[in-house]
Amino acid sequence: MEIITDKERDAFYKVLYNRRDTRSEFESTSIPEEILKRVLNAAHHAPSVGFMQPWDFVIVQDKKKKEKIKQAFEKSNNEATSLFEGDKQALYKTLKLEGILEAPIGIVVTCDKSRSGPVVLGRTVNKEMDAYSTVCAVQNLWLAARSENLGVGWVSIIDHSVLNKILNIPENILPVAYLCIGYVSHFHERPQLEKVGWLPRIPIEELIHYDEWDNKDLTI
Amino acid sequence: MEIITDKERDAFYKVLYNRRDTRSEFESTSIPEEILKRVLNAAHHAPSVGFMQPWDFVIVQDKKKKEKIKQAFEKSNNEATSLFEGDKQALYKTLKLEGILEAPIGIVVTCDKSRSGPVVLGRTVNKEMDAYSTVCAVQNLWLAARSENLGVGWVSIIDHSVLNKILNIPENILPVAYLCIGYVSHFHERPQLEKVGWLPRIPIEELIHYDEWDNKDLTI
Repeated sequence: MEIITDKERDAFYKVLYNRRDTRSEFESTSIPEEILKRVLNAAHHAPSVGFMQPWDFVIVQDKKKKEKIKQAFEKSNNEATSLFEGDKQALYKTLKLEGILEAPIGIVVTCDKSRSGPVVLGRTVNKEMDAYSTVCAVQNLWLAARSENLGVGWVSIIDHSVLNKILNIPENILPVAYLCIGYVSHFHERPQLEKVGWLPRIPIEELIHYDEWDNKDLTI
Repeated sequence: MEIITDKERDAFYKVLYNRRDTRSEFESTSIPEEILKRVLNAAHHAPSVGFMQPWDFVIVQDKKKKEKIKQAFEKSNNEATSLFEGDKQALYKTLKLEGILEAPIGIVVTCDKSRSGPVVLGRTVNKEMDAYSTVCAVQNLWLAARSENLGVGWVSIIDHSVLNKILNIPENILPVAYLCIGYVSHFHERPQLEKVGWLPRIPIEELIHYDEWDNKDLTI
């Protein structure tokens, strides 16, 4: 059994706390193949329900495809803007929420619900477990990238069915995340949305409950 | 900007590759409060859509509540068993899929879709982004636990609405994961489901595509 030492734990936490959602800081430098493979392999070693490994990774490097994806973002982002009101809308308009063209590559992480047949161990009562496993792979990828000093941004303001069309992904395969990845000029000290005052960090004490939802007293 | 050194990256990967889904190996030793807080704080520093931080953590330590949760597992697991056929059903019956009573505590990680109001930055076109953010918190928690030499098992064979009832979680709060967490006798070298031959590890080459779903040639 591999013991993690205090020093290794601290290195792990350094990676975790310095991970950021990257939008404006991408440099065009390409990612060496060996490093990209390490990051993808880390994603592939995420936990998955029934060991079904439902994920695939579509690497987007073609400029024309990126431009189409950027257009899809702009369409959905224009629709989103109108949903906010007043000061919030004004602030929303100032935010850069993606780095699709700037990042050297994009990665679409998908979920194949049919990967290991119709009945999946652990997905019998909770049908969304396969998508959740895919998100575990995304988070592994994101942290592994940070450990390689690579920035990652999750662009969620895209109609996923457009990704199926642009990248010829079969209709039954569910895109879960469009990720921009690349080297960056810098990592921000705090999340951008916290820094610009969009929302504050919630004190963790407010989020911990003991045995009952209404019990927030430490009895452990 | 914090640079991650090669040595720190290697420590990070050591944690990532030694993480396991723990079911049979729990010891009853309690987790020191300080360590549990570090693990929860790591979860709280996951990425979240629009910085909404939709998660809460319900720590389950009461024996009677654990017993009720175990009963809910057994009900759903009996239903699941009948869905498998022949050899697969025989193998399924031999698997231990949870450590609800053995682990010193359980943690329910929930998602509050209303946390920051009806319109959430980044959730406008993809409505499931809040649940996905919560899963990122689960994966952060899982890896942080491993860095503290704690095992975690995600028990997905539970009807989540039963957790709402047992722990008095309001109906509008969505349980995303029931996690068992504790010190362990050992971590397995490989995932248990791989070891017993339930499913093999998929070669990663089969999962990487370039610009088009059908293009698996390396052109990067």
